[in-house]
Parts: sequence; C-alpha cells; structure tokens
Amino acid sequence: MTLSVYLSGEIHTDWREQIIDACQGLDVAFDSPVTDHAASDDCGVAIMGAEENKFWHDHKGAKLNAIRTRRGIEMADVVVVRFGEKYKQWNAAFDAGYASALGKSIIVVSQAEHQHALKEVHAAALAVTDEPKAVAEMLRYVLTGGLPN
Amino acid sequence: MTLSVYLSGEIHTDWREQIIDACQGLDVAFDSPVTDHAASDDCGVAIMGAEENKFWHDHKGAKLNAIRTRRGIEMADVVVVRFGEKYKQWNAAFDAGYASALGKSIIVVSQAEHQHALKEVHAAALAVTDEPKAVAEMLRYVLTGGLPN
Amino acid sequence: MTLSVYLSGEIHTDWREQIIDACQGLDVAFDSPVTDHAASDDCGVAIMGAEENKFWHDHKGAKLNAIRTRRGIEMADVVVVRFGEKYKQWNAAFDAGYASALGKSIIVVSQAEHQHALKEVHAAALAVTDEPKAVAEMLRYVLTGGLPN
Amino acid sequence: MTLSVYLSGEIHTDWREQIIDACQGLDVAFDSPVTDHAASDDCGVAIMGAEENKFWHDHKGAKLNAIRTRRGIEMADVVVVRFGEKYKQWNAAFDAGYASALGKSIIVVSQAEHQHALKEVHAAALAVTDEPKAVAEMLRYVLTGGLPN
Amino acid sequence: MTLSVYLSGEIHTDWREQIIDACQGLDVAFDSPVTDHAASDDCGVAIMGAEENKFWHDHKGAKLNAIRTRRGIEMADVVVVRFGEKYKQWNAAFDAGYASALGKSIIVVSQAEHQHALKEVHAAALAVTDEPKAVAEMLRYVLTGGLPN
Amino acid sequence: MTLSVYLSGEIHTDWREQIIDACQGLDVAFDSPVTDHAASDDCGVAIMGAEENKFWHDHKGAKLNAIRTRRGIEMADVVVVRFGEKYKQWNAAFDAGYASALGKSIIVVSQAEHQHALKEVHAAALAVTDEPKAVAEMLRYVLTGGLPN
Amino acid sequence: MTLSVYLSGEIHTDWREQIIDACQGLDVAFDSPVTDHAASDDCGVAIMGAEENKFWHDHKGAKLNAIRTRRGIEMADVVVVRFGEKYKQWNAAFDAGYASALGKSIIVVSQAEHQHALKEVHAAALAVTDEPKAVAEMLRYVLTGGLPN
Amino acid sequence: MTLSVYLSGEIHTDWREQIIDACQGLDVAFDSPVTDHAASDDCGVAIMGAEENKFWHDHKGAKLNAIRTRRGIEMADVVVVRFGEKYKQWNAAFDAGYASALGKSIIVVSQAEHQHALKEVHAAALAVTDEPKAVAEMLRYVLTGGLPN
Repeated sequence: MTLSVYLSGEIHTDWREQIIDACQGLDVAFDSPVTDHAASDDCGVAIMGAEENKFWHDHKGAKLNAIRTRRGIEMADVVVVRFGEKYKQWNAAFDAGYASALGKSIIVVSQAEHQHALKEVHAAALAVTDEPKAVAEMLRYVLTGGLPN
Repeated sequence: MTLSVYLSGEIHTDWREQIIDACQGLDVAFDSPVTDHAASDDCGVAIMGAEENKFWHDHKGAKLNAIRTRRGIEMADVVVVRFGEKYKQWNAAFDAGYASALGKSIIVVSQAEHQHALKEVHAAALAVTDEPKAVAEMLRYVLTGGLPN
Repeated sequence: MTLSVYLSGEIHTDWREQIIDACQGLDVAFDSPVTDHAASDDCGVAIMGAEENKFWHDHKGAKLNAIRTRRGIEMADVVVVRFGEKYKQWNAAFDAGYASALGKSIIVVSQAEHQHALKEVHAAALAVTDEPKAVAEMLRYVLTGGLPN
Repeated sequence: MTLSVYLSGEIHTDWREQIIDACQGLDVAFDSPVTDHAASDDCGVAIMGAEENKFWHDHKGAKLNAIRTRRGIEMADVVVVRFGEKYKQWNAAFDAGYASALGKSIIVVSQAEHQHALKEVHAAALAVTDEPKAVAEMLRYVLTGGLPN
Repeated sequence: MTLSVYLSGEIHTDWREQIIDACQGLDVAFDSPVTDHAASDDCGVAIMGAEENKFWHDHKGAKLNAIRTRRGIEMADVVVVRFGEKYKQWNAAFDAGYASALGKSIIVVSQAEHQHALKEVHAAALAVTDEPKAVAEMLRYVLTGGLPN
Repeated sequence: MTLSVYLSGEIHTDWREQIIDACQGLDVAFDSPVTDHAASDDCGVAIMGAEENKFWHDHKGAKLNAIRTRRGIEMADVVVVRFGEKYKQWNAAFDAGYASALGKSIIVVSQAEHQHALKEVHAAALAVTDEPKAVAEMLRYVLTGGLPN
Repeated sequence: MTLSVYLSGEIHTDWREQIIDACQGLDVAFDSPVTDHAASDDCGVAIMGAEENKFWHDHKGAKLNAIRTRRGIEMADVVVVRFGEKYKQWNAAFDAGYASALGKSIIVVSQAEHQHALKEVHAAALAVTDEPKAVAEMLRYVLTGGLPN
Repeated sequence: MTLSVYLSGEIHTDWREQIIDACQGLDVAFDSPVTDHAASDDCGVAIMGAEENKFWHDHKGAKLNAIRTRRGIEMADVVVVRFGEKYKQWNAAFDAGYASALGKSIIVVSQAEHQHALKEVHAAALAVTDEPKAVAEMLRYVLTGGLPN
C-alpha cells in the first residue's frame, strides 16, 4: 500500500529533493505545492486576466493554488511541513492546521530558533525534527520497521 | 439563535474588547484562547510538573491550551483570526487552517503590509479587513441585516 | 424539540410572511437570508470598502452573505426553497444543492411553468408545491400529525 | 495521481470537448452527465414505464440521472460548472451547491452578462472564467505547475 | 442531559404509551412517527393534491413522513424499533438500518416467532427484548444505574 | 471508473445472475451477500463453536455475515435491493435503510403486491422496478447514456 | 458554554468525587459510566433474562452499558481516563481509543509504574497526570485561564 | 476487491504468520504494527534524538508508531485484535476502541481466562475466538462463502 506524503512549506531550499532521494526504493508517492515561486504568485492573473489591485491579483493566484494544495493534503497519509529560516510562512502553518483538522499524521521540520513560536504546531505533530534526512528515516521506519544504523 | 464567534490570534492589543463592545445588544457568544501570555506559556508545567527541556515545557502547555482552542473553533459559527504587527503568529495561521478544514466561516483581520504573505489565508476567508470595528459591523449585518450608517 | 426551518430563495413577495403567519403556535424557528435587496447587494463594500470592479464588489457581498446563508442551511432541519416568476435565481438552486449534499429535508415551492427546468431540484426534494400555504400545512403535519380540514 | 474532473452544466455547445482536447497528455479523468438531451429527458420512462403526468415523467428521469451525476461529483477532485447563454440552468447551480457542500474545488465557466446573477455561485468557486480554454490551462497548471506562454 | 429516544415501528398497539408511562420521572424526550394510520397514508395528497396512481399517492406521503422520521432518528440517542405480530413492517427494518448506519444505539422489541427472521436486525442492536416494559427498565438503568427490583 | 454495485436481498431466484449477464461488457463490479442459505445461517457456529440457544446461534452468524454485507454496501456506488415473493425479508429492508443513511444510490426491485408496504423504502430509492432486466438497463444508461431499443 | 467532561475508567476509588468537588463553581457537566460494579455486571440479565453461558451474560451487560458509555464519550468535550492500580482495565483503554478516533480531548490519569505500558494511550492524550486534583486544575484553567497558586 | 485486514495486538507469538499462511490464495492485504519490540520502543529517539526522561523517550516512539498504526486501522476493512497471555496490552484495547469508533469490523482473538475483563471489547466485536486459525476461516468465509470442512 503506497504511502502518500505531502511536502508542504518552504520552497527556497532543496529539502524536498533530499527527502525524495533518501526514500529511493520505498513505496512512497510524494506530492507538493507548485514550488516555482513566480508561477505560484502569478498563476491566477496569467490564466484568468490581470487585476489592478494587488489583493485580487494574489487572491486569484492563491485560490487557484488551493486546488492543488487542498487536494494534496486531503489525499495524504502524512503531511510534512517545513518551516525555513525566513519569511512569515503563514501558508505552512495554515497547511498544518488544515491537515490537523483532517486528522492527518503531521511531521514538522523546523529550526531550533523557532521552537517557542511553533509550539502549537509542534503540539499537533506526531514528529518534530530539524533535519530533512530524519523525515526519510521516519518514512522508512513507518513502511519497513527498519531503523537507521 | 446565538451566533458563536471565536476570536483567535494576536493577544497584545485590545482588539477583542473592541469587537465585543461594538456588538453590545447582539446575540453573539464570544470565545477566545487564554490571553494571559504568562499563564498560557506556563500552564502545562504549573499543573503537570516542571520540565528541564524547553521543548517539553512548551509542549505540555501547548497541548493543554489545545483543549480550549480546538473546542472554541469547533463550536464556532465564525472564526475571526487577527494577525498583529509583530511575531511569527504561526498559531493564528494554524487556527485559520484548522477552521478552514472544518468548513467554518473565517474573517481575517490583518494589516496592509502583510497582504502578500497572508494571501493563502485570505483566500480561505469569507471576509478580510484591517479594522476590528468592521468585524463588529459584519456580525451585526449577519445577524440583523443592518448596515453601518 | 423546535423544528428549524430555513426559507431560501425569492425575496420579492411575502411568501415567507405567509408561511410564518400560518405557523403561529407551532414550535418552529425560522431563519432566512437577508431579504433587503439593496443591503444584500452592497454589504461587502459598505463594510470592507469600495471596489471599482463590479465582480469584486459582488464577490465581497456574496461572501459576507454566505456567513449567514451557509449557517442557516447547516442548522436547519428543513430547507424550503422558493423559485419565483422572475430572474435567474441561481442562488436558490445553489442553496438547494448545498442542502441536498448535507442531507437536509428539502421542500420546493415553485410554479407550474418551471416544472421541467426544475426537475433535478424537484428530484432532490421531499415535497414540491406551488403554494406557500401548503408549506405551513406540511410543517404542521410534521410537528403534530394534523392535516388540513 | 490522476486528477478527477467532473464537467457539469450546459450541454448544447462543445465546451467539454474543447477542455478535453486541450488536456491531451495530462493525467486527468473526465466525467460528465449524460449529454444526449433526449435520452436524459426520457430515460426514466423508457426503462421504468410511461407516466401520464409530466411531473412524474421528469421525476423518474431526473432521479435516474442523479445516480450518475451525484457519483460524478462525489468522486471528483474538481467540479467545473458551465453556465451557457440560454435556459434556466438550475441543475448547473444545483450541482455547484452540491459540490460546494462537499468541499470540492469548483471552477465556474460563465459569461459576463450573468456576473451579477451568479455572484453566490462565483463566491463558492476557486476560479471563474468565461473561456473553456482557460479551464484546461488551470488543470495543466494544477498538475504540472506550467503556465500558458 | 436529556436522553432522546425515538420509538419506531408498529403503530397498532399501545407499546409507546407503556414505555412512556413507565419512564415517568426520567429525563427522557420521546419522539415517534405520526401514528395516525390514515393521516400517515394520505398526508401527501391531502396537502399537495391527489394522484391517480397509487404509487405516487403513497410516494408523496412517504416522503412527507420522511421529514419527520429521518429527523427523529438523526436526533435520537437511542432508537427503539418494535416489530409487531402482523404486516410486513419493512419501514421498521428500514429505520433500524438507517439508525445503524448513523451509529445510533438500537433496542429491538420483537417476538419469539420472529427471532430467525430478525437476526440481522438483532445483530445490529445493543439490546433485544420482547417486552416494552423492559425498554423502560433499560432507559432507567442507562440514566440512573438503577435496576428493577 | 468502475461502477460498484451491491446486490442485496432475496436469495432464492436467479435475479442476480440475470442482472450480471445482462451487464456483460459494462465496467461494473458486482458484490453481494453470501447466497448459500445454509452456510449463511450456520457460519457463526461452524467457525466459532456451537450454541445451544438458537438466538446466539443466529447472532454469531448474523454478525459474521455483517463483515461482508456492511463492507459491500459501504463500498458500493449503487445498492440494488430485491424484495421477493416470500418471507419477511427484514434484512433487505435493513440494508436499504443502511444504504440510505450512507447516501448511496438505491434501486429497488419489488412486486406490485408489495407496493404499499414498501412505500417508505421506495421513497428512499432513486429507481423502482419489478424487473431485474430493467436494473441492467439502468446501469447501462448510467455508464454509457444508452437506452434500450 | 458548559464544558462536558466524561470520567472513564477505574471505579474502585473516589477519584471522580475528588475532581467533581474540586470543580465546584465551574461550568462543567460531568458524566460517567455506571460505577456500581454489581449492577454494571448484571444489568443485561437482570432486565433481559438469564444466560447460562457467562460469555453471553457479560455480553448482554456490556452492550447495555455501551448505550451509556458511547453516548457519554460522544457528547463530551473532554474525556478523562483513569487507570488504577489493579485489574486489566481494558475498557478504560478501549474508551481512550474510542475517544481518540472521535477527536476528543483526552486527559489520562495514571501511575508511574504504568508509564511504559500506557505509552500509546499517553501519546493520544493532551495531558497526562497522576493526580485527580490536577485534572480539576486543568479544567479550571481551560475554562477560566486561572492557574493554581 | 481486496480485503484489507489489520492485525493489531500481541507481538510475542506467531499468530500473525498463522493467519497469513492460512489465508494463502485469498485476496487479502494484511497490515500490522512494527512487531520488532526493540525497534518499536526506541524508534523515536533513534531518529529524533535521545531523551533523558523515559516518559518522553516513550512518547516520541509511540507517536512515530502512531503514523503507522492509525493508518493501518483507518485503511482496514477488518481489524483483528489479539490479546495474549501476558502484559497489560492497553495498546491492543486502545486500537479496538479506535477501530470501533471508526465503524470497522472487529474480530477479537482472546483467551478464556480474559473473558470477563474483555467484555466491553467483545461487545464491540463482530466475532470473538480464541484461535488464530478461526480468523483465517472467517476471512475465507467473508470472501468466498466457503466454510471449513
């Protein structure tokens, strides 16, 4: 039975690739949001027409992206949410809340300096780590029972 | 039929009081998280015993607070989420995601400078404003059909 | 046990008042959308600020109204949907579909000339009539077992 | 992961074919109601026997069609609802409401002249356009992240 | 906390009154279908107009009655289903199945001679008895912990 | 997309085979209860040990059969319930109620003489017929849009 | 808004009274299983007739008790599960699992010596303590934000 | 249609292998928790880092294991829960409660000496046996209708 894993959050480093590479050979199907920042920002107006007001420009894009992100989370067995070093990252926390209300298993990848600010998100997670590599080890354990040497 | 409204998010200004005061006479029942910052941070260890590790100190508190916040959101007809000027406020975004997955009506109170960073949260809301006063006007309209003069 | 009845649809005749009057003495709690046409159209911009584009003007209003209409339907035991003589009335059909997916008991009040066009909506209803008075008779029967003389 | 898309609404133009053609090569599974107007109208009596009363003639057909349409919507990730130029099209609005209550992602294809009458339906959609071609572009973006040139 | 009990099934003996009388002083709210046989059969055509075809005559009535019976079952904590000596009583078995799928606690009141024919219904029940008096004893026990002397 | 159809009810005639044969070539997956009457009656004690009391003999069997029947109904898109000429057939009506509460599409195959007694079950169905052959025609129409010649 | 709290588990000490007493003045509604051990064991046969086989004696009782315990858990905001010093207490762990799948907030009251054996139950709880008094402090905090001095 | 079976509970005997072997040739997909006791106990700290406090050591492990066990139960058609001779086995009872609240079909494999202590768990099961072999016979019957010779 394939394990469906949705990789939510930070899009400026290669953490998704690290996890996917380290899961070679496991029966995992990964999904994620569109990680092309420019496309993600402009998709709404590119397809449905320009908006003068930045709010509606962003609104059209965020809603179009929601078709993908909501489905990704709803279909997932495990939702991994990565908080990076920079930016507000409210969409990551929003995804974590969304996944939590759906009863999904949540793994958070965060940094020590954000520990206190993320305490509510951590409290909703089944695992917290600061290393993408550890996520792969968790998925391997969940699927095979095998632990890292 | 009483309208249940949960006031989530920022706890350093009097925005909750502004809304509650402006809703005098309306059939609204307000709920909110514990807004005493110190109590909210330390409730877990105060009742269940100290932890050396800050992560578990926070974990105990965040989970105890979750008893109140999850119930507040689950019982609400409307969840108002306020993003203030400072801090990461990931708990606010988490609450918004949680409320969204439950199909709650969401009103976001945010600031112009955060517009882009909040676009996913805004996209999940039925109303967005930068003034607490407007929330009271919305609740009045929803309950009575009356608009501000 | 109070019967909750949501009165959806046409807002240009007094059909709601006819039903409510004819239900005097019954344990029914009625709810309905805001029926002040102008307020309903302009509520969004009146509270959250003007929009140049008519689409967003309407969008803001429709979403604010949704706070009331979704809750009204979700809380109802019975959703009565009235289709009048004029206009597209897509919101009425939308409400009927929304109520149907939630498993609500639906009563449709429509006119003979719309019979064919409403066949899918009628198929989802537990009762169809062309007279508001008959709705009151149904509610009386459902609550008391009494039939009209 | 195949994207399931249900194409609801207007059956007198080739908008479904336009979308399906433009999605060649994408991992999309399309479904739709029976679009043969005569068969759709008469299926009930053709299989279960004639009715003198037009209401029951239509009732039998509409319920038999509901086996297909409800399932199509319930299985879909995305429900596209097209409002054409003519007719009441209450079944399209009903489907939109049904899809909305189930939390489906909704894309509306409509015409400028219907903007105001569809505002409640638009408010429940994640995307609104007046061109079938744009729907294909959205589906391509949702699946691949690619935008039109 | 009031216990809601729906009394489904046979309408030709006074078993409902026996239970209700024996529960005097307990915090129970009883509900039941319309038990006036003639009214129950004719309610549809009495309110919505006559039908020549007996099938549709019955159909209108059964659907109108469903507004009450579905709500009664959905609101109940306990559904008591009584199978009497005579008739097909498929509506009683239908109600039991409906209640079972909703996870309601089911008590069946049946007769020894129907034991084998009711085995699937009994298997879905939390209690089976052949005496209405025993139902009252069960409700008393459930509410107070007290057993019959 | 394969259509899942559960064939519930009467087990003494070959109605299931008639439907399955007439659906050759269609993408339908049929399921049904165990139709070997003796095995169905005795499965519980055959595997889990004899019971002196007939009630518990039947209880063990009915619960073991429930593993199959509940799953069959829960997985089905369409539940066909056949009422034959003889017996109480309360399990068929129970299945119909169970399917109805789950929102399944129900097709009833019954006989003219049972019309009045089945009115509540018919009211919950999307189609009613007295011929198994007609069920196959419905499934064909639902899947292909094709009507019988 | 009254907080509903279900007190599950051990019935041989006065821990329930300790919590209830310590919650004087708080808006809490407590519920619990029948705590009269003899009545709880024999309720089934006392009302529905004797069984020779101990399994069915217990079965009848356990199912009758389930009417109360399932409802108690389903209606609760918070489920407190107490594991005492003795006995298998599988019903307590069962209740915890039941509550967990329903998304209830769980507080576990257990003893140090059972820490390892209860780790899966603890992992599903929002709070763990070894003192009933602490439960009252938690409920007070959840309702009022006040911490113990 | 493959039958999904989750094998929960005791991990010190080969009961899982017995069932799996005896189901050769049947369309069953088995799943189970990680049954390597040491790995199961230490997985949390092995991947996420050591804890001084045994409670948190176990907590990390139990939550990581929950990713697998919750999914296993949620995906299962049938949950088999085995209670062995030794230990508290609260996780087994917890799994049974969790499965019960989700409406899963439960089969309990237990021993005569635990009959009274397991009565609530047995009451929630569709079958109870003391032999793993009988589970295989049940699965065979459920899938094929065939009984043991």
